Amino acid sequence: MRFSRQMVTVEEAWNSLKGRLTIGREEEVPLGEAYGRILADDVHATCDLPHFDRSPLDGFAVRAADTVLAAPDQPVRLKVVETIAAGAVPAVALTEGCASRIMTGAMMPAGADAVIMFEQTEQLAAQAPEVGIRRQLRPGENVSRRGEEIAQGTVIARAGEKINAGTLAVLATFGYSRVTVVGKPRVGLLSTGIELVDVDQPLIPGKIRNSNAFMLSALIAEAGGVPLLFPNLPDELAVAKSAIAKHLQQVDVLITSGGVSVGDFDVMAELTDEPEVDLLFNRVAMRPGSPTTALMVAGKPIIALSGNPGACFLGFELFVRPALHVLAGASEPRRRTIRARLSIAYAKPCPYPRYLRGRLLEKDGVLYAQPDFNEKAGNLGTLKDSECFIIIPAGGGGKQAGELVEVLTHAAPSWRQEG
Amino acid sequence: MRFSRQMVTVEEAWNSLKGRLTIGREEEVPLGEAYGRILADDVHATCDLPHFDRSPLDGFAVRAADTVLAAPDQPVRLKVVETIAAGAVPAVALTEGCASRIMTGAMMPAGADAVIMFEQTEQLAAQAPEVGIRRQLRPGENVSRRGEEIAQGTVIARAGEKINAGTLAVLATFGYSRVTVVGKPRVGLLSTGIELVDVDQPLIPGKIRNSNAFMLSALIAEAGGVPLLFPNLPDELAVAKSAIAKHLQQVDVLITSGGVSVGDFDVMAELTDEPEVDLLFNRVAMRPGSPTTALMVAGKPIIALSGNPGACFLGFELFVRPALHVLAGASEPRRRTIRARLSIAYAKPCPYPRYLRGRLLEKDGVLYAQPDFNEKAGNLGTLKDSECFIIIPAGGGGKQAGELVEVLTHAAPSWRQEG
Repeated sequence: MRFSRQMVTVEEAWNSLKGRLTIGREEEVPLGEAYGRILADDVHATCDLPHFDRSPLDGFAVRAADTVLAAPDQPVRLKVVETIAAGAVPAVALTEGCASRIMTGAMMPAGADAVIMFEQTEQLAAQAPEVGIRRQLRPGENVSRRGEEIAQGTVIARAGEKINAGTLAVLATFGYSRVTVVGKPRVGLLSTGIELVDVDQPLIPGKIRNSNAFMLSALIAEAGGVPLLFPNLPDELAVAKSAIAKHLQQVDVLITSGGVSVGDFDVMAELTDEPEVDLLFNRVAMRPGSPTTALMVAGKPIIALSGNPGACFLGFELFVRPALHVLAGASEPRRRTIRARLSIAYAKPCPYPRYLRGRLLEKDGVLYAQPDFNEKAGNLGTLKDSECFIIIPAGGGGKQAGELVEVLTHAAPSWRQEG
Repeated sequence: MRFSRQMVTVEEAWNSLKGRLTIGREEEVPLGEAYGRILADDVHATCDLPHFDRSPLDGFAVRAADTVLAAPDQPVRLKVVETIAAGAVPAVALTEGCASRIMTGAMMPAGADAVIMFEQTEQLAAQAPEVGIRRQLRPGENVSRRGEEIAQGTVIARAGEKINAGTLAVLATFGYSRVTVVGKPRVGLLSTGIELVDVDQPLIPGKIRNSNAFMLSALIAEAGGVPLLFPNLPDELAVAKSAIAKHLQQVDVLITSGGVSVGDFDVMAELTDEPEVDLLFNRVAMRPGSPTTALMVAGKPIIALSGNPGACFLGFELFVRPALHVLAGASEPRRRTIRARLSIAYAKPCPYPRYLRGRLLEKDGVLYAQPDFNEKAGNLGTLKDSECFIIIPAGGGGKQAGELVEVLTHAAPSWRQEG
């Protein structure tokens, strides 16, 4: 099996995995803990917004009909009958020749149909009994009408949307002190390989420190999962199988790093030959990370990433992140690719589509993608600076500078200066 | 003072605020808690990476000199003297006519200077005593040399950088189980205005629910601060002053929402006239949010945002987020603006620079900025979908469709389809 793997495209691999993923259960959380979660249901406006006619500025509420003759040099004088603070209920209905001093956000008094800002009035003193109106107002001018922003019953956020700061604002406005979201997926995480030592252990010859566990934990949390770190997997198949069976009971999905290749001790590769395993894919047309593997055991998905840090990271972004988004209920689990001009040639023929890490630049409104000049898949030094994968298609002679390439972003661009 | 405020540009306002901000104290945290924090010091590679010559693939370590006559149809037969697992130390030095089976990441045996992958060899069985080498290898081929990725002593991450998943990977590799970061700023947060009711309270006429507190808490946490929510501020100046003085003792910076305008009960505006207050700015050439205010009290900065949700959000992104980044030690506290083509005309003259919320689109490698068609600064419904501010300069007749505009992003673009 190991040397006769069936190659699938990234799309085929994703589709076979996606078909096995089930959205998590709903749960209710206080609004203060809802940031970053995915809404389980559509949410509706519980009232009109504004829910009363209100003034959008500090000024005077008037009857527009009373201002017909007003001009800068001929102010119309109106009697000030009330001062209305935001939060107060007006006590006096306006009649002909009257105005109410009104604050931003305050409720319009009955009878008023326009507001004039302080700066366009003439006041002898702050609390003067009269005000001079220095221009004519149209009926409805400077009035925020009940429901003009959002009418009661409008969908304000949809199931599958991630809750951000703006969502919190609109949910709070409509009184959602609790909100129904999809449960966070519990994501098991383990590494394979006897070459690994922990971060706080001294390096001895032949060993390396386990860097993927920290990276993957952070990526899992960032993608909305709860990482559960399990001990490193031994390379004896029977022991590994029983450890995995135990771990799977505690998690919704298991992510492993290492052991997927054709080496003698690649336990994840060995595992795919076992009868209880339902193999989804173990050879993907992509570089790095072609041995990236996915399988089902006991009804739960295992995504086995390459141990090589760069390939591990790519496998995470292509398969694990969207898988966690599906489990967490996101309506758009995968990022869209965009197109950008390659800032420098990558003139190497690729037997598989090559995913180059890089950055996005902007110049005069045109997008450029700049590879990290990192031929080594495992190059750790540039991982932290990467914002996107630049996809060099298979075959041909690579891509020339200035050619359009597909780009898959995995971080907000920092829009560094070109050069 | 309220009606005779001195107007400053956004740049001037930021510079006057920035001058008053002091970076926080250093602290040491375990690597597992370092995600999202800002490095206090440059970090160096504690050893070469790789720290020994190693094989980048599964195959056979050989002496290139032994492969000179190898060809696909005339394999050179070598004696297999050892199998070297990743993590093991080779026991046998290669001599003429010998090879070692070697796994990805394993240490090269003495005497070997090249590696050939399994697929280019002829093996009679997995553990056969001989291997056929089917092509000539150059000395050094398929060997990852000690230090070729990162040499000992190299700066692997710089003071002022935010720690992301990739940073964690490289820090773990070099044994940093603890890392020195800048302390998170403690950010006090309060709202003003008697019109506000809490999210779980019924709406009564004239009142609105406090939506800014939830939004600002989330934004503060996202920007690296620790939000401390204080009770709403009353509109009596003396009470407000004493509350603020008390709160300031607990925080590094205080953020308020509301009460900055020219209304009768705008307590933050009133406060700026007090003798102990060092006013930085209270009128900024921008729409929305021109009354956005910053002041120093007892040596600590207070940033007073507009109560209007849209203006509050803009004020946060322009002043609070970069201020928190300075306090948290970021070397690049402000986001760069980029340029994009306006996707639809905004043909309205602006007395101040207008910050339109919108989204970024990409078409054939060209960036487009699409406004949210949201003339009302307070429009809550579109806050959650906003990815950037499109800056329409003051004066003139706005901008036509297709014209280049400056854009300040505040979220990773979702690259929605145009249309």
